[in-house]
Amino acid sequence: MNYFYAPPQQWINQHEVEIFGQEAQHIIKVLRYNVGDTIHIANGEGKIYECEINSVSKQKLTAILGTFVEEEVPELAKVLALGVIRIRDRFEFAIEKAVELGATEICIFSADHTERTKINEDRLKLLIVSAFKQSGRFWLPDLVVLKSLDQVYKYYDDFDFIMAHEETSLTNRTDILSNDSVLMVGPEGGFSERELTLNKNNAGEFISLGKNRLRAETAVTALLSQYLFS
Amino acid sequence: MNYFYAPPQQWINQHEVEIFGQEAQHIIKVLRYNVGDTIHIANGEGKIYECEINSVSKQKLTAILGTFVEEEVPELAKVLALGVIRIRDRFEFAIEKAVELGATEICIFSADHTERTKINEDRLKLLIVSAFKQSGRFWLPDLVVLKSLDQVYKYYDDFDFIMAHEETSLTNRTDILSNDSVLMVGPEGGFSERELTLNKNNAGEFISLGKNRLRAETAVTALLSQYLFS
Repeated sequence: MNYFYAPPQQWINQHEVEIFGQEAQHIIKVLRYNVGDTIHIANGEGKIYECEINSVSKQKLTAILGTFVEEEVPELAKVLALGVIRIRDRFEFAIEKAVELGATEICIFSADHTERTKINEDRLKLLIVSAFKQSGRFWLPDLVVLKSLDQVYKYYDDFDFIMAHEETSLTNRTDILSNDSVLMVGPEGGFSERELTLNKNNAGEFISLGKNRLRAETAVTALLSQYLFS
Repeated sequence: MNYFYAPPQQWINQHEVEIFGQEAQHIIKVLRYNVGDTIHIANGEGKIYECEINSVSKQKLTAILGTFVEEEVPELAKVLALGVIRIRDRFEFAIEKAVELGATEICIFSADHTERTKINEDRLKLLIVSAFKQSGRFWLPDLVVLKSLDQVYKYYDDFDFIMAHEETSLTNRTDILSNDSVLMVGPEGGFSERELTLNKNNAGEFISLGKNRLRAETAVTALLSQYLFS
């Protein structure tokens, strides 16, 4: 099922939703939907409504809510915490793939080896929404931006921490993810010695992703893919 | 360990290797190596040699072979067979990731839903060499180009076939890959009904990659990641 997305503030009341901006342009101008047509709209919080368009203007449309399909909130949180990658294409690729592969939340942070300071949060949010719709998910992953790995441990206080690190013995993947977890991947150059120690001090686990040297965005997909069947 | 790559025809004899073209330019002009310096050169067939540069000219360098490190040929073949993807960035990404994630050979074919006819094989081979070096592998995956899925079954006659398909019951990943295998991923739009039937008729297995709808290149990474620990 293909659907559109409306963020919380656009759900006017229990019966009506508004769509603005690019999403509205796409529905009206490109797909040429009009008053009376049926479309599906996700709220990003587990529900996708069948809706009937009841007004269309240049900038927005409104639709009346019909029946919905629903998915329960995932039992376990599976947060991807990713050190900001210098090469934008690879960084965005990692985030897109994390959404497709089921991350419940995406946290980006400046790692010790991060070389880029500017992040366009709005662009990343659009990317997350796009991948959310493309992959048919019911729950939209949040984007959390933190200043360092130290903050990641504080922010996700009662989570398990699993750090991808090539120079470690294998951790059996079946042993992990029985609790809310943060899956941590470093930027180009990996985690620093300081960050490795930080993980130990926070009772974090380490997981190796095989013997090949993986780029950061590949490590993201490899790590999240371990939990596709759990 | 960082190393360079020389294809078979550049290994002059048991004692000497030549490097031409872009790779030579990179070593001489960018990295500024010169006569007497030590570099590592992989033959893509299991061996990486420590070499001493013994001549440098504008276009090429030669080096004397020293000791080598070696890795046995992988016990099982793990071929990725990928239907050509229309969007070039995503297609190339899939191939790069397949190399990083351990595919022993990469076969691309025109699937029923493939919308692109032009393939730049030389460009793809460079991409494979680049990912091979980056990921620290010893064996360079071959590139095989076939005209249809039908040809894939013929070409890999005595292999097991495992087709990624979203609308199938889960196949337990531990049951598979005990034999030389071809892991098959369709292009945008997935496999056609005809191709699904073809897989059944060739005693192929089906594997689902979870409940989210994955893009083709994501399916490649998810599928190959299942075998990182095997």
